[in-house]
Amino acid sequence: MLELFHNDMSVCAQKVRHLLAEKELQWESRHMSLRHKEQFSPQYLALNPNGVVPTLVHDGRPVIESTIICEYLEDAFGETSFRPADSVDRARMRLWTKQLDDTIHAATVVVTVGIGIRHQYAEIHTQEEIDEILDSVPNPKWRVLKRQLIESGMNHPDLAGALLRLQQMLDDMEGALPMGGWLVGDAISIADIGLLPYVLRLDHLNFGDLIEQRPNLADWYGRITARDAFKEAYLNQWLNEKYVRDLQEKGAEARDMVLRCLAA
Amino acid sequence: MLELFHNDMSVCAQKVRHLLAEKELQWESRHMSLRHKEQFSPQYLALNPNGVVPTLVHDGRPVIESTIICEYLEDAFGETSFRPADSVDRARMRLWTKQLDDTIHAATVVVTVGIGIRHQYAEIHTQEEIDEILDSVPNPKWRVLKRQLIESGMNHPDLAGALLRLQQMLDDMEGALPMGGWLVGDAISIADIGLLPYVLRLDHLNFGDLIEQRPNLADWYGRITARDAFKEAYLNQWLNEKYVRDLQEKGAEARDMVLRCLAA
Repeated sequence: MLELFHNDMSVCAQKVRHLLAEKELQWESRHMSLRHKEQFSPQYLALNPNGVVPTLVHDGRPVIESTIICEYLEDAFGETSFRPADSVDRARMRLWTKQLDDTIHAATVVVTVGIGIRHQYAEIHTQEEIDEILDSVPNPKWRVLKRQLIESGMNHPDLAGALLRLQQMLDDMEGALPMGGWLVGDAISIADIGLLPYVLRLDHLNFGDLIEQRPNLADWYGRITARDAFKEAYLNQWLNEKYVRDLQEKGAEARDMVLRCLAA
Repeated sequence: MLELFHNDMSVCAQKVRHLLAEKELQWESRHMSLRHKEQFSPQYLALNPNGVVPTLVHDGRPVIESTIICEYLEDAFGETSFRPADSVDRARMRLWTKQLDDTIHAATVVVTVGIGIRHQYAEIHTQEEIDEILDSVPNPKWRVLKRQLIESGMNHPDLAGALLRLQQMLDDMEGALPMGGWLVGDAISIADIGLLPYVLRLDHLNFGDLIEQRPNLADWYGRITARDAFKEAYLNQWLNEKYVRDLQEKGAEARDMVLRCLAA
């Protein structure tokens, strides 16, 4: 049995749900509410000491870290493969997923919290509750960063660099994508599935025009979001409409500042 | 044909040479001298836009990033495998190599340059040459960090955190290693091969006692450095004795400061 401990709008969870759907694997949902600090419970920390989602549990054995979970799903359920057959192409696929782990994910956290989600914290929590959530984050670097982002928002010193990193991601994808094709080789792979939630997040923040301005990327985005697996993994019960509305609204308010950063 | 663009004392190159030796693969050496800025030549940047070593070129096709090169060698030459057969164990192996990419490599650069190698720069280069080398580093984050480390040395604000991260690495290894065994499963894997150069670097900096204090780690270290593949990859023509002497000398001078950081 496959169980997925996840959250509706987590980019890393979206990625794993997408691969599960593409591979047509059945799984049981264990949805974790950050609001109720479920991911910091002793039971969950025993599975995932970092206190982050997702965690995949396969017949009782946990696998953590979304990039590693994707490789695991390929190793354990390789019949329909989303890793290229050619070894050099597989290395190129891993250069994309490594970028997510190295810089793109962190940049997306900075942009998501700094522009969008910091307001949610203040709306639905008392300061005491915010402190309690932040103090529960096991990794000290993330704990400090999240607090700074909630406090400083768009004045956070990392915001401009994070926006530029995501612009670079869009440029790199535009440069790598052939019209009608995929990031690596001639089929959809873990590279495409891995990058998608980060592109979508910019769309949710009302920056869809940055996608539309890049024709190969726009074509790719249209094709990948038209797949049944996308609908299963991202829409239906997993689309948190309130969260998306907040991102859209705050992204629109931040638009001038963001465009100034990107033009600098 | 396999060609390896590498450097004698680069931890990432040591790791790849070790795996090549364990797999008994023949390769041609393309040794790159940082001193002569060979890794920033247009020809090399065409292979590896990051201007770092190693790069593996297999029948003319380049593969970059040492963690990805190791996975590539397994994908392309899987007869003698250094990835565990069990998929969950393979995920556990990747949790170790991901730590290298996430934090351990950066911490090791901080410690190596901040304590040891900054003095080499001043000894063998004019300030103009140092500027020229540093200005050639393509990645702006590394460019700034290296300059700061050369300028501030042990006063660099990241040094204490880097030392603590490496201490955590030793503790995690001690906790994971069974006496007489390996980091994952019952055979040597890319996890062991990946961690080794980072443990050895601490030994070269005169902190072998931090290894000796941890019995399972000390036992592992003795066994892995007794292997023929270790001698092929790390010793003989690839041991830069001047570099090691500098590390030993500067590590000894920094000893009190380091132990204060680790005890804090």
